Amino acid sequence: MPGMSPLAPARFPDLPVIDGVRFATIAAGVRYKGRTDVMLAELAPGTTVAGVFTRSATRSAAVLDCEAKLGAASEAGAAIIVNSGNSNAFTGRKGAASVAAIAGAVAGALDLPEARVFTSSTGVIGEPLPHDRIIDVLGDLHGRLDPAGIEGAARAIMTTDTFPKGASAKVTLPGGTVRIAGIAKGSGMIAPDMATMLVYVFTDAAIGQAPLQALLGAMTDRTFNCITVDSDTSTSDTVLVAATGASGVDVTGEAAFATALEAVLRDLALQVVRDGEGASKLIEVRVTGAAGDADARKAGLAIANSPLVKTAIAGEDANWGRIVMAVGKSGAAADRDRLSIRFGDITVARDGERAPDYSEEAASAYMKQQELVIGVDLGVGQGTATVWTCDLTHGYIEINADYRS
Amino acid sequence: MPGMSPLAPARFPDLPVIDGVRFATIAAGVRYKGRTDVMLAELAPGTTVAGVFTRSATRSAAVLDCEAKLGAASEAGAAIIVNSGNSNAFTGRKGAASVAAIAGAVAGALDLPEARVFTSSTGVIGEPLPHDRIIDVLGDLHGRLDPAGIEGAARAIMTTDTFPKGASAKVTLPGGTVRIAGIAKGSGMIAPDMATMLVYVFTDAAIGQAPLQALLGAMTDRTFNCITVDSDTSTSDTVLVAATGASGVDVTGEAAFATALEAVLRDLALQVVRDGEGASKLIEVRVTGAAGDADARKAGLAIANSPLVKTAIAGEDANWGRIVMAVGKSGAAADRDRLSIRFGDITVARDGERAPDYSEEAASAYMKQQELVIGVDLGVGQGTATVWTCDLTHGYIEINADYRS
Repeated sequence: MPGMSPLAPARFPDLPVIDGVRFATIAAGVRYKGRTDVMLAELAPGTTVAGVFTRSATRSAAVLDCEAKLGAASEAGAAIIVNSGNSNAFTGRKGAASVAAIAGAVAGALDLPEARVFTSSTGVIGEPLPHDRIIDVLGDLHGRLDPAGIEGAARAIMTTDTFPKGASAKVTLPGGTVRIAGIAKGSGMIAPDMATMLVYVFTDAAIGQAPLQALLGAMTDRTFNCITVDSDTSTSDTVLVAATGASGVDVTGEAAFATALEAVLRDLALQVVRDGEGASKLIEVRVTGAAGDADARKAGLAIANSPLVKTAIAGEDANWGRIVMAVGKSGAAADRDRLSIRFGDITVARDGERAPDYSEEAASAYMKQQELVIGVDLGVGQGTATVWTCDLTHGYIEINADYRS
Repeated sequence: MPGMSPLAPARFPDLPVIDGVRFATIAAGVRYKGRTDVMLAELAPGTTVAGVFTRSATRSAAVLDCEAKLGAASEAGAAIIVNSGNSNAFTGRKGAASVAAIAGAVAGALDLPEARVFTSSTGVIGEPLPHDRIIDVLGDLHGRLDPAGIEGAARAIMTTDTFPKGASAKVTLPGGTVRIAGIAKGSGMIAPDMATMLVYVFTDAAIGQAPLQALLGAMTDRTFNCITVDSDTSTSDTVLVAATGASGVDVTGEAAFATALEAVLRDLALQVVRDGEGASKLIEVRVTGAAGDADARKAGLAIANSPLVKTAIAGEDANWGRIVMAVGKSGAAADRDRLSIRFGDITVARDGERAPDYSEEAASAYMKQQELVIGVDLGVGQGTATVWTCDLTHGYIEINADYRS
């Protein structure tokens, strides 16, 4: 396996304890040997849970189960249990049976209604999940629950990730201070509308399920739905946000809370891109001048998903012609003769042709940076979008041409 | 540069002479040194010309010019002139000026109306085309026109291609025999709705422009629009079919002619996939059981374009879970629990889960073949489609991470 991504942060961040949440992890041997592969998060009574999920037509049993449980209002406590190594996706009727078995056992162990137990699974598709291995360790997990266990949780949910991912924020409001802490996993099969990506965010803020769900939907569109590693979308993608209310501070309608939540989601989303399989460069694509924001996102994702753009960047080649190509195929309205393209602060093309003062040397020097910003103005309107991706390297081929063996 | 594709045919086929067409090629030094890079095809008076083009929003000046000229009925002769090395795309007003200069000069040299001169350019995007180098050699080209020059023409239009591409057919009808011969170039930036792909097909059949155009549109949807190498789409894609009528055999409405034309187009399309950048395997994706043919094509292209599917095949890994993933993200209606997947004759998944008699050994052995057939039944209806692609290998990265230097 390859070493840590060159784009990884220096270390896992210090995450605050979130009142009302306790974590436990264990090595259950679902597939991996010698590492933790199950994490349990116990959530205090009164916690509201919101979620967004992959829109794949072949989404997994766990995703379908979580979706169904979101709406059920309850004052009871709740739990999230996640295993890595096996996604329990495309496992037919056995898949739903595994989810029910795990949720039922967790409900029994923690004395919760089964409808308040959310499960996720990530890893290989199509292999029946050996759920007994998870159920057998529930007693041990229960005994290990710890409010400070979030970093261990971030590690237990990793698959091809090369580093654990965490982010946090603190918001001071007139009524008091609330904290947000989140973890994520994901590095391949990452695309708009989510990916083999699992994200769990916890806050001690007080907010009803409906407003939390609305907030999460809007924020996901501007964060996780704007990243792509390889255009592939998993059958298991899940983002859950749990608000325990333990701070006693009601954040309903508070813009500062929304901003902080978006920052945490964006931080986690960018960490997923930084851990993109084989990634050597982080690329931000800023599209302006589109007919609308949706068109801007369409053009941005076409650029970010183009194998020819991504390989050129891997080769540190200022090949802006491939960006023109990607805009052209995107389906977004664009005026070929008003299109302009920037690499960082360098204008490489303007008014539909190479900029008169274009310097190949300056552009090539810029391409050697590890973090790049590509600016594209479509020349037709006021729509904007920002999209993040990584380059396409030999590392991606190495990781994915031999993942199962 | 890499050697010849392992999927290349043993040799260039013998193509018949098409009455009413003469070819010439020359080394004009547009960009490449020491090889031919311009080809001229002269078409007899009365020739009808049909064409389909990239739908890119940033399509090149030559494409826009060809599109505009198709409709102009004329009994005059015609010409097609093509250069490799520079696509004259995204070159602003200079681009249109280059097209006009070349078309005007060819019209003068061959004594044709300018509206009957079709131009194409392929190669690097965004560099002004040094069209004088082409115009300067028109006299020499004129002197070299030869009815048997089609193989040279196939070679002159190559860019990153590793072999020249040709195909032919003969159709015997009650009124006589007609011949079809075609050439193509293209190996990267290949995707539905065309690619950096140029295709020229010639026939001595007699057929009006309107019926020829209708036929070409329908046949392109089943051939060139069903291949993909990397999901990227060029700004210059062009398929032109010229019918000289020299055989005196009217083929309007003749099913045998349509079938033969489709066979030639499919043969050329598959040769483009066989020359896909870095390709080591040719993959045919057969989708059945879709809600409709359009849905089947959508699912087939999602599979064929998935980097995870393509890298698994490069690694000879029978990773059918990634096919489930690709179906799920495609947007095509699919019943997860009725989905079935075959590799060749081996059923790997059925009724939404791994086939009970699945043998990893048998599947892995099949994956070692150079030509693979993946069958996917979506389980919801009667729609079908067949799509062709190649695998994604280190070779693709090598070619594309350093194309311009």
